[in-house]
Amino acid sequence: MEYLKPYLQAFDNYLAKYKFNQSPQSLYEPLDYLIELGGKRVRPCLAIMAYDIYKDDLDPSLPIAMAVELFHNFSLMHDDIMDEASIRRGKETVHIKFDTNAAILSGDLMLIKAYEFLEQVDDLYYKKTMQVFNKTAIEVCEGQRLDMDFEQRKDVAISEYINMIGLKTSVLLAASLQLGSLVAGAGESDQFHIYEFGKNIGIAFQIQDDILDTFGDEAVGKVLGGDIMQNKKTYLYLKAIELASDLQREELHLLYSTKLEDNSEKILRVKKLFNSLVVREYAVQVMDAYKDLAISHIVQLDIPAENKESLKAFAEFLVSRSH
Amino acid sequence: MEYLKPYLQAFDNYLAKYKFNQSPQSLYEPLDYLIELGGKRVRPCLAIMAYDIYKDDLDPSLPIAMAVELFHNFSLMHDDIMDEASIRRGKETVHIKFDTNAAILSGDLMLIKAYEFLEQVDDLYYKKTMQVFNKTAIEVCEGQRLDMDFEQRKDVAISEYINMIGLKTSVLLAASLQLGSLVAGAGESDQFHIYEFGKNIGIAFQIQDDILDTFGDEAVGKVLGGDIMQNKKTYLYLKAIELASDLQREELHLLYSTKLEDNSEKILRVKKLFNSLVVREYAVQVMDAYKDLAISHIVQLDIPAENKESLKAFAEFLVSRSH
Repeated sequence: MEYLKPYLQAFDNYLAKYKFNQSPQSLYEPLDYLIELGGKRVRPCLAIMAYDIYKDDLDPSLPIAMAVELFHNFSLMHDDIMDEASIRRGKETVHIKFDTNAAILSGDLMLIKAYEFLEQVDDLYYKKTMQVFNKTAIEVCEGQRLDMDFEQRKDVAISEYINMIGLKTSVLLAASLQLGSLVAGAGESDQFHIYEFGKNIGIAFQIQDDILDTFGDEAVGKVLGGDIMQNKKTYLYLKAIELASDLQREELHLLYSTKLEDNSEKILRVKKLFNSLVVREYAVQVMDAYKDLAISHIVQLDIPAENKESLKAFAEFLVSRSH
Repeated sequence: MEYLKPYLQAFDNYLAKYKFNQSPQSLYEPLDYLIELGGKRVRPCLAIMAYDIYKDDLDPSLPIAMAVELFHNFSLMHDDIMDEASIRRGKETVHIKFDTNAAILSGDLMLIKAYEFLEQVDDLYYKKTMQVFNKTAIEVCEGQRLDMDFEQRKDVAISEYINMIGLKTSVLLAASLQLGSLVAGAGESDQFHIYEFGKNIGIAFQIQDDILDTFGDEAVGKVLGGDIMQNKKTYLYLKAIELASDLQREELHLLYSTKLEDNSEKILRVKKLFNSLVVREYAVQVMDAYKDLAISHIVQLDIPAENKESLKAFAEFLVSRSH
């Protein structure tokens, strides 16, 4: 999105100033490696954007931006071990390129480094910043644990799934926005509404992610069906289970109880079931509902109309992307 | 030690009040399991003891005590994965009893919980508390990394070893003392000297540990020679390498390049080499030097003489234990 560019630029400049590459190299190199792989930098951009709504000079928002990006990368480094993922952002994950011990310990360091950057927050906002950050960090751990637990369970309710993605994904987006607004001096009410905006748009974003993984545009180079291959219990799957006849449910359970070398047949059959149960349409409806809920919180922000329009445009952008 | 008992009691009462056992259980149970295995609670006792020197009511020191104990347990949970340790405090380590993923994620949670407890520190001391805690946490990671790197190196200098145990072990003891004194309102100078006391007595303590692992009292039920079995580059080993003739050095390198089923022969031969090079006596001298350096910092504390005597007695106790 065009208007996020200055925030991305500000963050990249700030990141370039810091040398994480300290001694011992074996500890700091995996951290440098992962953070320099890039990614979309959504969380730091959200923090800086939220700050920019209230104040001009962006500098005080940059330690927040760095902290949320470091936290996000810490969680990726550890999650990739737990999920046995070998590729991240098109490159080897840390535990593959280095080893598992490096990914554990440098991940720990990355989390602590996030806390260290927060030391730069003005004393006026420091304790509150820490409270929000700690609460969020705990919730992200809870979300990751639930996600792992769901893999072993057959009876996951859609409400549980929404709770899980809220914790694993949305609260960090929400906290990025809240903390950006907090250090810009936003009041309690605005902090609350911008947090709720982030929380709900994050849920919509994740449901969109689920849809794209199965029904996305192959033309943009995305490999489709990854969630189906890995038997991930996404919104689409859970809704299908809910709506399925006994026979269809049996077929889905069977398809989701195997991991195959050649998945094209499995993906085809699952997609056919999803299509006959119109779960994609349900997912779009639910996604829109969360988007609307998110936007309802924008309305209640005590900020200029043009900033509200930007936030709305951002919300629409997030859930309308096709890849 | 008799006079530490009230501190241990205060900590145990505080710990008993908190239920970590929240939802999801799969996330919180490993945390409860490890923290309830007990251990000597050295770090929380140090924090409370340092506080007690300056102020009477112990309550404000308890969140500090909890934070340093949680941090210590977090590092144990992750180190045990990295070191492939299967027993801790006489029970299965977390990654054995649960699994590696549980030990990674619940370890992360434990670290964040430490930060959460620190929210209770008075605003007056909060930022400084966080600065000390963050710096210490980073150093402990650096120490663990160096310890792992040393396993792969043949040329570790004794000065590097002292630096490593300083980071891996001593800085957390030192920070426990400093933070306890800080939240009791101790001045900068006292904070500095109590930190340096802890740092140096911690190094003495670790060298004592090295000595006891090889030359300790089997009568108290300790299994001796664990460091030798695992080819650990302790002070004894590094000093022996330094003093050895070419022939002796070759033998030591050979002995330390194998991991055997039956180690009794290996332990005997290494101990014989250690004895002929009198490295135990060197180790005791160095340990005493660090103890004296530690005590020199007690002298400079601006506290009543009787408190100084207690700290000295504590120092003597730590390095005189025979098991």
